[in-house]
Amino acid sequence: MQDLKQYIEENKQRFLDELFELIRIPSISSIADHKPDMYKAAGQWQKILLDAGADKAEIMDTAGNPVTYGEKIIDPSYPTVMVYGHMDVMPVDPINLWDSPPFEPEVRDGKIYARGADDDKGQAFMHAKAFEYLVKTNQLKCNVKFLIEGEEEVGSPNLPKFCEEHKEMLQSDVILVSDTGMIAPDVPTITTGLRGLAYWQVEVTGPNRDLHSGLFGGAVANPINVLANMITQMVDNNGHITIPGFYDDVIEVSAEERAMMAKAPYNEDDYKKALDVDALYGEKGFSTNERTGIRPSFDVCGIWGGYTGEGAKTVLPSKAYAKISSRLVPDQDHEKIAELFKNHFESIAPDYVKVEVESLHGGQAYVCPIDLPAYKAAEKACETVFGKKPVPVRSGGSIPIISTFEEILGVKSVLMGFGLESDAIHSPNENFPLEQFYNGIETIPYFYKNFAELSK
Amino acid sequence: MQDLKQYIEENKQRFLDELFELIRIPSISSIADHKPDMYKAAGQWQKILLDAGADKAEIMDTAGNPVTYGEKIIDPSYPTVMVYGHMDVMPVDPINLWDSPPFEPEVRDGKIYARGADDDKGQAFMHAKAFEYLVKTNQLKCNVKFLIEGEEEVGSPNLPKFCEEHKEMLQSDVILVSDTGMIAPDVPTITTGLRGLAYWQVEVTGPNRDLHSGLFGGAVANPINVLANMITQMVDNNGHITIPGFYDDVIEVSAEERAMMAKAPYNEDDYKKALDVDALYGEKGFSTNERTGIRPSFDVCGIWGGYTGEGAKTVLPSKAYAKISSRLVPDQDHEKIAELFKNHFESIAPDYVKVEVESLHGGQAYVCPIDLPAYKAAEKACETVFGKKPVPVRSGGSIPIISTFEEILGVKSVLMGFGLESDAIHSPNENFPLEQFYNGIETIPYFYKNFAELSK
Repeated sequence: MQDLKQYIEENKQRFLDELFELIRIPSISSIADHKPDMYKAAGQWQKILLDAGADKAEIMDTAGNPVTYGEKIIDPSYPTVMVYGHMDVMPVDPINLWDSPPFEPEVRDGKIYARGADDDKGQAFMHAKAFEYLVKTNQLKCNVKFLIEGEEEVGSPNLPKFCEEHKEMLQSDVILVSDTGMIAPDVPTITTGLRGLAYWQVEVTGPNRDLHSGLFGGAVANPINVLANMITQMVDNNGHITIPGFYDDVIEVSAEERAMMAKAPYNEDDYKKALDVDALYGEKGFSTNERTGIRPSFDVCGIWGGYTGEGAKTVLPSKAYAKISSRLVPDQDHEKIAELFKNHFESIAPDYVKVEVESLHGGQAYVCPIDLPAYKAAEKACETVFGKKPVPVRSGGSIPIISTFEEILGVKSVLMGFGLESDAIHSPNENFPLEQFYNGIETIPYFYKNFAELSK
Repeated sequence: MQDLKQYIEENKQRFLDELFELIRIPSISSIADHKPDMYKAAGQWQKILLDAGADKAEIMDTAGNPVTYGEKIIDPSYPTVMVYGHMDVMPVDPINLWDSPPFEPEVRDGKIYARGADDDKGQAFMHAKAFEYLVKTNQLKCNVKFLIEGEEEVGSPNLPKFCEEHKEMLQSDVILVSDTGMIAPDVPTITTGLRGLAYWQVEVTGPNRDLHSGLFGGAVANPINVLANMITQMVDNNGHITIPGFYDDVIEVSAEERAMMAKAPYNEDDYKKALDVDALYGEKGFSTNERTGIRPSFDVCGIWGGYTGEGAKTVLPSKAYAKISSRLVPDQDHEKIAELFKNHFESIAPDYVKVEVESLHGGQAYVCPIDLPAYKAAEKACETVFGKKPVPVRSGGSIPIISTFEEILGVKSVLMGFGLESDAIHSPNENFPLEQFYNGIETIPYFYKNFAELSK
């Protein structure tokens, strides 16, 4: 691929012009008024894919926003890569904090400034241009499918059904995604894990009405005190979650992988300073990156009960509530964990209160084994362009559709992202450095080349 | 006083109409927006006292809400009774649990339903009407002073200074108060003890902003989890408060007095049934009446933090808050306890959070000896109307100003209250049975008669 660098160099301005055309469509999925823009964006993606060399590309309806699907099938004996990306973007509020209009992209200081510049228009568009290079130079040794959806920023509510209905169309050997980031411009990164999630609301009822805390205080259990006590019991002094069976399915990560993870740049002082905390707290025996990457968590996301207004009202309240969530790791099943928590939390309720637990939401964790051929292909591609092996990182966040792909299609995803933390995705002044954009376009063709060779 | 029953019978509807006019003023002292209502209520009390026969009645300013003071001085040689009551009421949240609007009083099933129906508009108003009867029928043999304040529900922060500044005006032989309750409609009760109170607001700060619970959960301490843990540590498994020095000044009540207290009617099954709880919880080694009467308590009156709206939002919040109170018993000093709690709570804060404790208000505990002439006068008055001697009880509630009266004015208070436990004071659907209201009006004139005779 000696001509790759040159191809990019010669087409730099055209790539930017085409990306800007896509960015100018304000395809905000969470705002109903932008529904027509979702169709415009889907049409633009259709054009992008056809122009780049796809055999076909079509706009397909869902119960929500449309999906653009395109493909180039060269040879059934070749491995098939499906590129997943999204055409929708986050809202732009607070608009007054933007230094330039969010949907009028411009380059300043070597960065593209616009909503979607990184997430995910810029990153998904790199795939179209890498694909274009491979098609035009006749070096593509994989079949390629593109699945570009319009509801990622609102949790992909209609994509699972779309996958169920188009299993055959979406059949592939691996899914390649650029919707994550790199630790630093010179530290290529592959996200190998995403945490799952379980989320509950609990209600603790003491007396049947709010009581006078003087007349009853000391003689009748206070549901807030009890809830505080129950929450406290859920995590022991080592930061270990006490729900029986909670860790049964947690995959212990190998010493080798932990050693690799430990190479990720991390400065505890900077981390604490950025959060303005004097100390960190988490499960004993694990580093910060491990605590968020390979270990489950237990957080109260919200709590309320009794008098919360101005001043001092003495009351022994009838009820106390909390919203509680656990981030989960492979192979914890969110439905099983939801049940384990419910049973345990109810079982530790003292007989002087009544407790109700409702499961509100959940999603599976995802992990990409680092010995997967597709991982190796991505690793080698990064090494070729950046001159060093990428760091495999486990992100603490969740992209629910990735585990859904595995469940429904039975296909693993490789998350090779080129964003940077400074890209301010979801925030004002979202940006994407030109260097990241062009490096991404340069890296992706090597992935196809390596994957074709490793799949032989 | 043969005409007393008849007088009440003939004026029943007018008494109600006048009380309702007072109740309709939403004089919530803890909410700043209701400040104009406090002046309305003070003006209404001025009218009530003048109409009832006071020589004078005036609205007097304090640094906070106004006080209405009125008096009728018949003869300097007569004993002087000062009636203390309050015009302010508690907030009405949760408003949706009220069956009728809290400030639109209505009679249902023989009870007045409204905020303040009992506490303390209904009870204080009985004194105005008893006084009216005595004046109109020329049977008053005491000088009478009325001190109706507007900040009782927020701890009477400005009344101590008011008392200091008006010692002479407030000079009296006894203070008569109806702001407590009876054990049952047929069991007259005089409250001989009140618990003191200390009340704090605590703020626990973790990271400097709300965090993504996926990216940070497990690695950064969650201030709600920490607050729950700190609250849990405040009380041990025996229901004992763990603040060092907390019990140092608690007067241990003698076995003899505990034996007398044990004779008060109490049915645990009925008590539990009325509250709809399967079990009670409190300090080990003490009965329910002892737990509320002679032992201190520790209750979280309110708690809040993080996401408390609809559905599931994942967040690791920056802050968590609680409003916490302790009821105190003789000889615990509320200022000393406030300081002990603050020091202890701050000392147990782990280094991964910042904790702030603010003392919001407090008051001392109070005891009334049962051989006091004024107590005897009240005892005999109850016996006349209810046909049996009242039971002396130690209430778990607090009226901080009562101990302040003793400290500043050197005057004891007699707490002859007519509320019932089912009145739901401080709660939705506060009510006051008409029978209690009229019985109260009937009992009070006998107190004046007996006290005048016993003071000769």
